[in-house]
Amino acid sequence: MTQDSMKAVVYHGPSKKSLDTVPVPKVQKPTDAVVRIVTTTICGTDLHILKGDVPAVTEGRILGHEGVGIIESVGDAVSNFKPGDRVLISCITSCGKCEYCKQQMYSHCEDGGWILGHLIDGTQAEYVRIPHADNSLYPIPEGADEEALVMLSDILPTGHEIGVLYGAVKPGDTVAIVGAGPVGMGALLTAQFYSPAKIIMVDLDDGRLEMAKTFGATDLINSGSGDTVAQIMAHTKDGVDVAIEAVGIPHTFDICQQIVRPGGHIANVGVHGTKVDLQIQDLWIKNITLTTGLVNTNTTPMLLKTVTSGKLQPERLISHRFSFDDFMGAYEVFGNASRENAMKVIINND
Amino acid sequence: MTQDSMKAVVYHGPSKKSLDTVPVPKVQKPTDAVVRIVTTTICGTDLHILKGDVPAVTEGRILGHEGVGIIESVGDAVSNFKPGDRVLISCITSCGKCEYCKQQMYSHCEDGGWILGHLIDGTQAEYVRIPHADNSLYPIPEGADEEALVMLSDILPTGHEIGVLYGAVKPGDTVAIVGAGPVGMGALLTAQFYSPAKIIMVDLDDGRLEMAKTFGATDLINSGSGDTVAQIMAHTKDGVDVAIEAVGIPHTFDICQQIVRPGGHIANVGVHGTKVDLQIQDLWIKNITLTTGLVNTNTTPMLLKTVTSGKLQPERLISHRFSFDDFMGAYEVFGNASRENAMKVIINND
Amino acid sequence: MTQDSMKAVVYHGPSKKSLDTVPVPKVQKPTDAVVRIVTTTICGTDLHILKGDVPAVTEGRILGHEGVGIIESVGDAVSNFKPGDRVLISCITSCGKCEYCKQQMYSHCEDGGWILGHLIDGTQAEYVRIPHADNSLYPIPEGADEEALVMLSDILPTGHEIGVLYGAVKPGDTVAIVGAGPVGMGALLTAQFYSPAKIIMVDLDDGRLEMAKTFGATDLINSGSGDTVAQIMAHTKDGVDVAIEAVGIPHTFDICQQIVRPGGHIANVGVHGTKVDLQIQDLWIKNITLTTGLVNTNTTPMLLKTVTSGKLQPERLISHRFSFDDFMGAYEVFGNASRENAMKVIINND
Amino acid sequence: MTQDSMKAVVYHGPSKKSLDTVPVPKVQKPTDAVVRIVTTTICGTDLHILKGDVPAVTEGRILGHEGVGIIESVGDAVSNFKPGDRVLISCITSCGKCEYCKQQMYSHCEDGGWILGHLIDGTQAEYVRIPHADNSLYPIPEGADEEALVMLSDILPTGHEIGVLYGAVKPGDTVAIVGAGPVGMGALLTAQFYSPAKIIMVDLDDGRLEMAKTFGATDLINSGSGDTVAQIMAHTKDGVDVAIEAVGIPHTFDICQQIVRPGGHIANVGVHGTKVDLQIQDLWIKNITLTTGLVNTNTTPMLLKTVTSGKLQPERLISHRFSFDDFMGAYEVFGNASRENAMKVIINND
Repeated sequence: MTQDSMKAVVYHGPSKKSLDTVPVPKVQKPTDAVVRIVTTTICGTDLHILKGDVPAVTEGRILGHEGVGIIESVGDAVSNFKPGDRVLISCITSCGKCEYCKQQMYSHCEDGGWILGHLIDGTQAEYVRIPHADNSLYPIPEGADEEALVMLSDILPTGHEIGVLYGAVKPGDTVAIVGAGPVGMGALLTAQFYSPAKIIMVDLDDGRLEMAKTFGATDLINSGSGDTVAQIMAHTKDGVDVAIEAVGIPHTFDICQQIVRPGGHIANVGVHGTKVDLQIQDLWIKNITLTTGLVNTNTTPMLLKTVTSGKLQPERLISHRFSFDDFMGAYEVFGNASRENAMKVIINND
Repeated sequence: MTQDSMKAVVYHGPSKKSLDTVPVPKVQKPTDAVVRIVTTTICGTDLHILKGDVPAVTEGRILGHEGVGIIESVGDAVSNFKPGDRVLISCITSCGKCEYCKQQMYSHCEDGGWILGHLIDGTQAEYVRIPHADNSLYPIPEGADEEALVMLSDILPTGHEIGVLYGAVKPGDTVAIVGAGPVGMGALLTAQFYSPAKIIMVDLDDGRLEMAKTFGATDLINSGSGDTVAQIMAHTKDGVDVAIEAVGIPHTFDICQQIVRPGGHIANVGVHGTKVDLQIQDLWIKNITLTTGLVNTNTTPMLLKTVTSGKLQPERLISHRFSFDDFMGAYEVFGNASRENAMKVIINND
Repeated sequence: MTQDSMKAVVYHGPSKKSLDTVPVPKVQKPTDAVVRIVTTTICGTDLHILKGDVPAVTEGRILGHEGVGIIESVGDAVSNFKPGDRVLISCITSCGKCEYCKQQMYSHCEDGGWILGHLIDGTQAEYVRIPHADNSLYPIPEGADEEALVMLSDILPTGHEIGVLYGAVKPGDTVAIVGAGPVGMGALLTAQFYSPAKIIMVDLDDGRLEMAKTFGATDLINSGSGDTVAQIMAHTKDGVDVAIEAVGIPHTFDICQQIVRPGGHIANVGVHGTKVDLQIQDLWIKNITLTTGLVNTNTTPMLLKTVTSGKLQPERLISHRFSFDDFMGAYEVFGNASRENAMKVIINND
Repeated sequence: MTQDSMKAVVYHGPSKKSLDTVPVPKVQKPTDAVVRIVTTTICGTDLHILKGDVPAVTEGRILGHEGVGIIESVGDAVSNFKPGDRVLISCITSCGKCEYCKQQMYSHCEDGGWILGHLIDGTQAEYVRIPHADNSLYPIPEGADEEALVMLSDILPTGHEIGVLYGAVKPGDTVAIVGAGPVGMGALLTAQFYSPAKIIMVDLDDGRLEMAKTFGATDLINSGSGDTVAQIMAHTKDGVDVAIEAVGIPHTFDICQQIVRPGGHIANVGVHGTKVDLQIQDLWIKNITLTTGLVNTNTTPMLLKTVTSGKLQPERLISHRFSFDDFMGAYEVFGNASRENAMKVIINND
């Protein structure tokens, strides 16, 4: 029998969170499922919420939008899953039937999008209710490393879709990824699906750059040195084919617009808090393409295939592991990622 | 026999130009052709040059990058054309053999691009030398209205490629074109190749808006009223699918970034002199695509087919006609386009 | 109150059908809707079924997969529609949550596809049950000509998706459509969304060719004359860019493979009963693309927009109208289309 | 000084060839180059010619369309190359200025295409004249293994463009390659640019299958066993995403059409001598895409980048090496590839 109460990380306003005991969620609509969380993680976005940067998150909200778990119960209209099925939770909820979903733009689903741990209770809990379960959960392939699949809830599809696919990485390309955090690393790992000739990784943290090298970066540039643009340009003939912005501040955006070659792509993945200067007096003539986006997770099924085939090794992104009871410790480490040499932290609930 | 001297519009520094007598150009390389100009026109870019905005243009340069003419002589390696052939001159010179040309990005040709009336002498003359003639000229289809084809040297391919194709206009789309000058009108005419449901034309000049209506615009908005964005949004559910910027100033760029729907496109066609504010704190989550570009003229052969089939009527863009001797009069009218109700002016040399 | 019994066209084995009184269908699953049919039609496929060519259709099956109607009742999980809504019924049922649906290949939906009037009861009835209603019905735009929208259940999306989009029709192209029946005509009408320069219509029936001319065909060829291929080639330089096969027999397929230019497309729309000879000893070197397909109806929302904007006039395909009581008369006329000069017949139930 | 006479493999009619002494070619047009051959090879097509299967090849023709060499002399209009430059020769000659070349379909160049060793003298000689040198030769990157680059004259671009790109191989796909000869192996090596999950290699020769395994094939099927289709289907859910036909006979084509999944691709690379049965009565409903083609070599610059970056190792295809004087020995081995365990043979002239 399912228990009535559970532990969950609850937001209590800026800078306040606690591991509380709250009621277990129930199926509310015929398309819902309730999932028992086996593994979850913390996203940089959760830190933003805790800073008070995302006012739509109200006090009392359970945080988290990533996780792997086991189906506990389903509504009458759920047909893809049944209790006991092991599932990957997408950070994006998709109804599968609105105009945006029909175009695979689940990020803008009219009854979903990013709602978990934002507008409805999230995955940093023992149980979570997932609306539109058939379209928002994915079956876990037999034999998969479940813990590692948590990287497919958000980080890897974000790096892949918004960085690599929107950036149109092609064989032989020279790619620069500005920002070696989890999403930049996700872009680094998935860019290699398309065999670029060079991947130049740019970050302020030498530890992260070294890790990037083991993940397949061909060139490393510490952007603290001041001549980042010149250093990148020295690796190219007339600029990079693809510049992936994976930080979200004016300086890193500016690097990207300075290094892109004529006909090249700037794929903005970073979450920005302020406007940036677009040097369109230089760019208008350069035939460039600039893209932005929230992840759709429409490539999640494909990513699962590449995990199964061994092309993608999501476990490489995991730096620390915690038990569910030590969730606050996980936040402490992830919130001081540079000091702790943290990339992604895993919280197991088993 | 070809004459030795000819008349040409010569740039003599900011605000200075005159119709001078200069030597007739000769074939210099085996891939050159010399073309006798039959019809030419004036571009907004020529006005920029005359303001001194394009410092690469040096004193003594013959202006102009548009025209239709007759082949006078060709170099040994020219195989597509022979003397007497009637040709359309592309504003873009393409060598056909560099990395950019092989990708149909003639705008960035390593031995060409926009050079006519810029880095080498141009078409506002009785004769012009065209480098890489085989790739930079197009045969005129039998029975075509030659005068009107001058619109295919620059305006129509620019509107089509950088506005419509980069903007990815599709059947059923709602498109806003901000700026009803010649290039915006070119976008308006060629957008209709792809059957959008609505084309909203935005300009300050009611005369141009009325003309846009006769060209196929479905909705007209005078942007002098102050609530342009709200007016455009009222025509849509959640913004336009495609916003085409065809002016080149911060205000019109800003309109575009405010009206684009999630998943939509901003196609910048305007030539900008200063940076703009990119509201990336709002756009990062909207999955938008922003493109820029100088025309490649790679769709010129296709445009010629649509002229022949009657789908495209380039003559609609012509508002005034002048004889070659009255070239200064043509500049006077085109330079005061609003007062003169001028769109494109034609200068005939026959 | 809904009645308990209704009239419907029931299949009773090869060559046998009758307008029977049968029970009104009910909602069976939470994702179902029951729709009261206002207008329906007959498809060439229905004639195939009646010849016994589609053995999956069993005796007692209500025929028909096209129609417009009013929602009578919905299951608990239906959220896009409510009783009283006026809807277009797609010939393709889509669950919206299988691998194929997520790729917009609704034709191969794992719990749908073409099932109406095939594997489950269809639309030639006063009421029909529509599974997965949210993804298989479309709201009718205000002010639309409802009767004409029946053309969007199957014919127009089939011509558009499988003929025009798979054939990759582009501005300036030369297109040949072999077969001027309803689907060929659907391809003819929707090909014009993309502004081809020439559309050559090929058929044995001069009446249909004349109708094609009024629909926008630029050239007509009666294929009874014997030199069809030579006649088509005479309209082109080196073959057509796109050949659309809209009949489904070896002879018409063969015409298509003979007329396609290097780099061109053959889009097979016809339903074939036997293999064809593919002249691959000639085609291997020609860089051609051959496509096949059952309609996905993923472009139906876009087609609805083009109807609203006036770009598409589906009513042009309607040649005859019948009352529901005279359904057998409609079959008689449609089954002798050539003699009756019939294109699409409409059956109204109001 | 260049010598006046040279050795070359000359075709003397079916089954007759010899290493003759013939005049050294000269530059004939301003766009020509003469190249001294350093390394060449033999293609399966050369064996076809020797069987008399390619009647366009007349007696006295020097064979060969692959090679690496050094520029000996160039015409006046050649600007990309100068004497002494080391170059890769493309099997396809491209003028760079006809309609097909402008669309990157160099295979159908109106003054080129496959002409070397076919319509003009080829590369199995000490010197070869290359028309349209600027577009038909590629500079060799510094530090490259020149010998191995001969694989980029034909085999690797053919496998990549006609097999992998036309087949639209994507990350996570299941790909079957039917035929493990040089072109099938080229498809195998280059398919991995796009990270398919499975590559099933099918051939009659266990030796070639074992080699395929070392090249990255995930599954091997010897098609001599009789149940090839069933064995392939057992590796898939509902067929392969991409079937690459790399043999050119009805049986192997038939395998491909039986194993392709709904929505999948058949990329025909094989050179066929007879028609095949297309089972369109089964395929019409499957939404498949079938492509054919002669290589364009438009991806050669990209392939060169992947060689430089180490993603592509063309030398893996080389099984035997011969001196130029032993050219007949090379033919003997390549003509008995199965017995000799030959893949590609290299003939060096230094």
